[in-house]
Amino acid sequence: MRLYTYFRSSAAYRVRIALNLKQLRYTAVPVHLLRGGGEQFTDAYACVNPARLVPVLEDGEATISQSLAIIEYLEETHPRPPLLPSAHAGRAQVRSLALAIACDIHPLNNLRVLRYLKSTWDRDDAQREEWQRHWIRAGLEALELRLAGNADTGSFCHGDSPTLADCCLVPQLANADRLSLPLDEYPTLRRIRDRCVQLPAFIAAAPGAQPDAE
Amino acid sequence: MRLYTYFRSSAAYRVRIALNLKQLRYTAVPVHLLRGGGEQFTDAYACVNPARLVPVLEDGEATISQSLAIIEYLEETHPRPPLLPSAHAGRAQVRSLALAIACDIHPLNNLRVLRYLKSTWDRDDAQREEWQRHWIRAGLEALELRLAGNADTGSFCHGDSPTLADCCLVPQLANADRLSLPLDEYPTLRRIRDRCVQLPAFIAAAPGAQPDAE
Repeated sequence: MRLYTYFRSSAAYRVRIALNLKQLRYTAVPVHLLRGGGEQFTDAYACVNPARLVPVLEDGEATISQSLAIIEYLEETHPRPPLLPSAHAGRAQVRSLALAIACDIHPLNNLRVLRYLKSTWDRDDAQREEWQRHWIRAGLEALELRLAGNADTGSFCHGDSPTLADCCLVPQLANADRLSLPLDEYPTLRRIRDRCVQLPAFIAAAPGAQPDAE
Repeated sequence: MRLYTYFRSSAAYRVRIALNLKQLRYTAVPVHLLRGGGEQFTDAYACVNPARLVPVLEDGEATISQSLAIIEYLEETHPRPPLLPSAHAGRAQVRSLALAIACDIHPLNNLRVLRYLKSTWDRDDAQREEWQRHWIRAGLEALELRLAGNADTGSFCHGDSPTLADCCLVPQLANADRLSLPLDEYPTLRRIRDRCVQLPAFIAAAPGAQPDAE
């Protein structure tokens, strides 16, 4: 398997965690999203992903974009260890938590969005950081309420082993850290993150541990 | 089953299509996102969804937010007719197409985002519409390239029956129509949409056909 990745992409980070949890070996193909205007805009990369985004997983004939689609694919093709619980309601909860991050927080803080805010509306660094913090806070606040009040929450987002939800939570909190957003108001999220980052799968997936890290 | 919905929410629209395709009966609980500052901000709704978003599906003991998590849940609990193909690679493609809409287009054009742009940065109607069109065009352009160049594309996004991807595409194109965005550059998407909207499941799910439509 080959993973088109960028060390700082939190969507790629999710997939790296999932691959590691399932102990799947892969070749990392770094796509530098900033260098030379962005390697994702080359003609070669258009053939890999017309949407010009990372990550993309190549597995035999299959070329898959979108981090959650990749992780669901890995879950179906390599079921052990499972990243989704077995019961229908639990699977729905885990997917819902993951999507609450992947749809409600991360897309607003994407590199391409920050670029638009700068180039089209001349938003300065402080304004763009406040924009990012605003959406992260809104999303984390709702997540904290959900997890703190749910009997299914364990050492991880759902029960006592990592799931798809944890694959999304840890990269999102890493982004919060980069923006110096205090996590005091999200004790459940912080507790789960602190547990996750002790695991080798999460450690090896971290941005700083990637071959393309700067 | 009870679906918390708003006629104009494109995420709720996706779920309504899926429920109809599977011929599942449900009670619609309208949540008016604009009236009185937004019914999603009531204390009562906080118990349903701390994230203050629609849709939410209640099915027995399960309360599920996030449209794609709901549709995956319906797919697992009511497998016929399937909204995902059977082969791993095909399932990944359909999920990837759905996520390309749910993560890369829709979150940027959400009501809460448009409100931020107006209240915090004083962006006027024209600027906010151009913002919306920008992200829709970027997303649809990539989707058109993917679908036009893929042998799996049929009368629908994947093959000749509707899938999760079509549940997402049709509401997104309805949003494009509301913004008077021409679809000439996306002939494949338009052809698929034109086929979908002939089906009773899509007709009954449309915003204008809802009990809370204005």
